[in-house]
Amino acid sequence: MRELDERFLRRALQLAERARGHTHPNPLVGAVLVREGRVVGEGYHPRAGEAHAEVLALSQAGELARGATAYVSLEPCAHFGRTPPCSLALLQAGVARVVVAAREENPLAQGGLERLRAAGVAVEAGLLEAEARAQNEVFFHVQKTGRPFVLLKAALTLDGKAAAPSGDARWVSSEASRRVAQAYRQGLPAVAVGVGTVLQDDPALTVREPDFRPFPLMLEPPPLRDPAKVVLDTEARTPPTARLFRPGPRGEPARVYLLVGKGAPKERLAALERAGARVVELPREGGRVSLEGALGFLLEEGLDGVLLEAGPTLAGAFLARGLVDKLALFLAPKLLGEGRGLAEGLAVERVAEARKLRLTRREWLEEDLWLEGYLEV
Amino acid sequence: MRELDERFLRRALQLAERARGHTHPNPLVGAVLVREGRVVGEGYHPRAGEAHAEVLALSQAGELARGATAYVSLEPCAHFGRTPPCSLALLQAGVARVVVAAREENPLAQGGLERLRAAGVAVEAGLLEAEARAQNEVFFHVQKTGRPFVLLKAALTLDGKAAAPSGDARWVSSEASRRVAQAYRQGLPAVAVGVGTVLQDDPALTVREPDFRPFPLMLEPPPLRDPAKVVLDTEARTPPTARLFRPGPRGEPARVYLLVGKGAPKERLAALERAGARVVELPREGGRVSLEGALGFLLEEGLDGVLLEAGPTLAGAFLARGLVDKLALFLAPKLLGEGRGLAEGLAVERVAEARKLRLTRREWLEEDLWLEGYLEV
Repeated sequence: MRELDERFLRRALQLAERARGHTHPNPLVGAVLVREGRVVGEGYHPRAGEAHAEVLALSQAGELARGATAYVSLEPCAHFGRTPPCSLALLQAGVARVVVAAREENPLAQGGLERLRAAGVAVEAGLLEAEARAQNEVFFHVQKTGRPFVLLKAALTLDGKAAAPSGDARWVSSEASRRVAQAYRQGLPAVAVGVGTVLQDDPALTVREPDFRPFPLMLEPPPLRDPAKVVLDTEARTPPTARLFRPGPRGEPARVYLLVGKGAPKERLAALERAGARVVELPREGGRVSLEGALGFLLEEGLDGVLLEAGPTLAGAFLARGLVDKLALFLAPKLLGEGRGLAEGLAVERVAEARKLRLTRREWLEEDLWLEGYLEV
Repeated sequence: MRELDERFLRRALQLAERARGHTHPNPLVGAVLVREGRVVGEGYHPRAGEAHAEVLALSQAGELARGATAYVSLEPCAHFGRTPPCSLALLQAGVARVVVAAREENPLAQGGLERLRAAGVAVEAGLLEAEARAQNEVFFHVQKTGRPFVLLKAALTLDGKAAAPSGDARWVSSEASRRVAQAYRQGLPAVAVGVGTVLQDDPALTVREPDFRPFPLMLEPPPLRDPAKVVLDTEARTPPTARLFRPGPRGEPARVYLLVGKGAPKERLAALERAGARVVELPREGGRVSLEGALGFLLEEGLDGVLLEAGPTLAGAFLARGLVDKLALFLAPKLLGEGRGLAEGLAVERVAEARKLRLTRREWLEEDLWLEGYLEV
């Protein structure tokens, strides 16, 4: 029984992965309806504002939903948001049992399981919970902290250098690492850089040929899409000809947010707007755009997760303020000696006060080491 | 047959490991005599100037050596050095077959196998050759290059820092890592530091509680002994009260070489000699003791391998001159941001010119990553 439950619930998590990158600020959700051991309906939430996973699965199942078991990756919602609550839909369809991986933490959305149980539906929760929470770590993080989830990504040599003293950084890591690294852009709604990176590397910040190994439940790639591009650019120095303004590899118009400091030169702002940027003036703090202000603005825009592909100045500023939640590092078996590191401006007096990482991924990609870890708080 | 050969040859390699740290500048050698499937004699070279492995095994076997097979980790020597050649001893004892792991590369010592073959002894070489060459990598390196083997050891955070900006480095790596790191001191005849490390950390540079995992064929720890201690100290700034002058944990008197620049203050040299140092004046090069001069001197002293436990200035100088052969790195899941790195003064224009490492060990020691690798030339 438990084995079957786990199999169908895993299927629900896999369905959810099909929409990776498309649902923000909503979570990924997948649902499977099973009657007499046979799948009678499947669904996943494809995009914010569109149908919920349970509703799609129910509509596929039709009358066969009656008496079925519903496997859902996340607790069905209980509130009337943009769509009627899924717990109500499951009840009305006559589902007999509901198995859920992760419980909701948002008090607004919670209560779905209680409502079902009160109506006599058998309810279980907690199977594959770790996988389900990892799948929606952005969503859960925002519910808990009220801040966007920030993932700092970097490629370093074994001696911790991201670039030669000249600024040249092509390429520290291997091609295999760079494909895996690119997948993180699909996994988060926004990618952020500092203006220094724009001036030095002129990156496109698009999703081209990702390798989706970061997402273990993903059986096939989701539809590719480019993230929103965010430039932290206090003095508006981004050239209007920068590559990041160009349409993406699938012809998508670029969505560029230029976060500038109050009082940045007006004529430059106008030129950047003509280039297609949404220019946003934010308070300054310590000579630069307030990072807390920037994150607050992004969250209001529905950009609840940020991939930070920043150079050492900006990465150091985020780290020093405790605003980085997770790291993805690619370590290449090379030495550079002198050069730019991961994080400047972050300093502690003693090694005992170093920031500690709880590593959750330690894999070799050919010669490079691929690490993921959470900063301990 | 091959399986039995491999078993006895592995035994010879394991016997050789018993003397790790004691034979320099001689290689580690182990020998096993087998007659009718039974071990009749075993030996290993315990120390430079003492008996060779084959001779000890023969003397244990006595008359039983006649018609036996000799398994030797390294080609038996053919020349009259401090002891008569081992190939002659094997011949005289009537050994019928000789199986060798690694061939000699020193033309002076070579010829042992030819001599045996010419006398009608069955001779085989090359089984377990990679293991045997790794076991004596210091010895083979010196034969090939005429330079001591230099192993740079360091503990770094994931962002490549060896110390906080204050210089504090206690401790970047875990206790488990530090025990493994200490074993390298037994594995090489000398440990070298710069005077900066002496002034900052005042290390004892002794062998206390090593964990011998670096040496895979070692079944039991060798007798512990402290390495010779080498300080590169151009201006003779080492305090005569430094801990490295003190006797080791087993009461051994410290063997300290202070390599100073020509013209270093005489009164300081006298004080250091009184503290027990052997003071050696060497030519200066670029404001510091010539590193090539230092290595040449150490080789003359029979110190054919150097464990470099240097700070970034000295490590960078060795790396920039291409004088580091191997690295042992312990990477701890921490970030320091600012701080001292692995190697200062080593700089390349472009990432494509970074020094590459061929990694031969990638192990996790609890939370730390333990790497060994060879610098590609």
